Amino acid sequence: MISRMLFYGNYVLCQCLGLLCVVFVSYWNIEWRGGFAWDASFLQFNWHPVLMVTGLVVLYGNAAILYRIPFTWSQRKQHWKLVHAALLLSSLILSILGLCAVFDFHTGYHIPNLYSLHSWVGICTVVLFTAQWLLGLVGFLSPCSPLGFRKLLKPVHAWMGMAIFILSLASCLSVTRNADPPPITTNYIAYSSHPAEALFANFLGVLIVAFGLVVLGILSNQRWSRLEPGEESSRVSILLSAVIS
Amino acid sequence: MISRMLFYGNYVLCQCLGLLCVVFVSYWNIEWRGGFAWDASFLQFNWHPVLMVTGLVVLYGNAAILYRIPFTWSQRKQHWKLVHAALLLSSLILSILGLCAVFDFHTGYHIPNLYSLHSWVGICTVVLFTAQWLLGLVGFLSPCSPLGFRKLLKPVHAWMGMAIFILSLASCLSVTRNADPPPITTNYIAYSSHPAEALFANFLGVLIVAFGLVVLGILSNQRWSRLEPGEESSRVSILLSAVIS
Repeated sequence: MISRMLFYGNYVLCQCLGLLCVVFVSYWNIEWRGGFAWDASFLQFNWHPVLMVTGLVVLYGNAAILYRIPFTWSQRKQHWKLVHAALLLSSLILSILGLCAVFDFHTGYHIPNLYSLHSWVGICTVVLFTAQWLLGLVGFLSPCSPLGFRKLLKPVHAWMGMAIFILSLASCLSVTRNADPPPITTNYIAYSSHPAEALFANFLGVLIVAFGLVVLGILSNQRWSRLEPGEESSRVSILLSAVIS
Repeated sequence: MISRMLFYGNYVLCQCLGLLCVVFVSYWNIEWRGGFAWDASFLQFNWHPVLMVTGLVVLYGNAAILYRIPFTWSQRKQHWKLVHAALLLSSLILSILGLCAVFDFHTGYHIPNLYSLHSWVGICTVVLFTAQWLLGLVGFLSPCSPLGFRKLLKPVHAWMGMAIFILSLASCLSVTRNADPPPITTNYIAYSSHPAEALFANFLGVLIVAFGLVVLGILSNQRWSRLEPGEESSRVSILLSAVIS
């Protein structure tokens, strides 16, 4: 019971942080970057951070921890597999739209693509995510996927899922630096005149880090993982040995 | 046997990536940043990335996966606890020296401290790391620490250890952006004239991400965790149920 209450405490915190991430990234682009449009201008570029944070961080993180919700354990896994796949598909579509926003803006301003660490990590993340989603569809939702293949794929799928989430956090953090004053150049801005936008963007970065840590914390706790058929006795045995020893 | 071979494959990869991170960050600062000194100049600042990557990423990552090495399982844990603590103490000392390097440089150039997301995440990481090391010393190495406290502390220690490592990766990635040309300002540098330094720094970022993913991959694989007294029967039971089901 304490374990479940602890889970739901973490889950509510995760939802609040996720919501704050979306609100902060939207407000940042409305208040300081001029809002949104889809016309290959700066205003189209502004969709990029909003769609990536909403899709590749918040929606993805929520999809990753879906099976950890104790409420779902007593229900058929097949239904929750569909919800997991649908959440991830929404996340993937938002991410691809986010990439389109930045590529269109680059084309409009004759700026080349993929020149920064942010873009390298980001594009790898989306490519891996697409491969992971398709492999997940074939491996876990297709009725003709053999059981042996599913068993082999499951740990790889779980590890890749975590790696993609960490890569998406890494992409976000390698770009929020944009709003900072450059620290070791001649046009350095003094702390007293530090613009509100930079502080706000830094807080957004902190929120993304906090959301990521809560999601990874939930994923790393084995007691919150869904029991598969045949695992109940082992789990009881582990809990017993922990109590006895 | 296959699991052990797979572990050692990952371990060798981890060591190679860690070594490359140290070589790349040192070469970057020697080749493009003028080398090192300890005189509150730019050359003192150059110690900062080298000490942080070596200490807070590579040494820390190695300390985190120490108990996963199957070679250590048959030996007394107390010895390996001392090695774990010593590696982390070296990591902590290098990190604090790395912070001194940047604070001294800021003082010399009248630059204020802690104004960027990088510095916020970085200082939190080192503060948490110091608290974690001291708590670990009291909880796991002090002979008067009660068994109940150790049992309570262990999952918190493991989770905090992972969180600190992710925070240290996040700090590194939020700063390598420095070497990129700013993408949406008027002084944008075309891709054709992209300086070699920026590409090199991006590769360093990719190496750090790869090292981090291998370390986190090793940590997340339950089959590579050290068996504690009382866990053997549970592990056998889990393996059996996985084979039977």
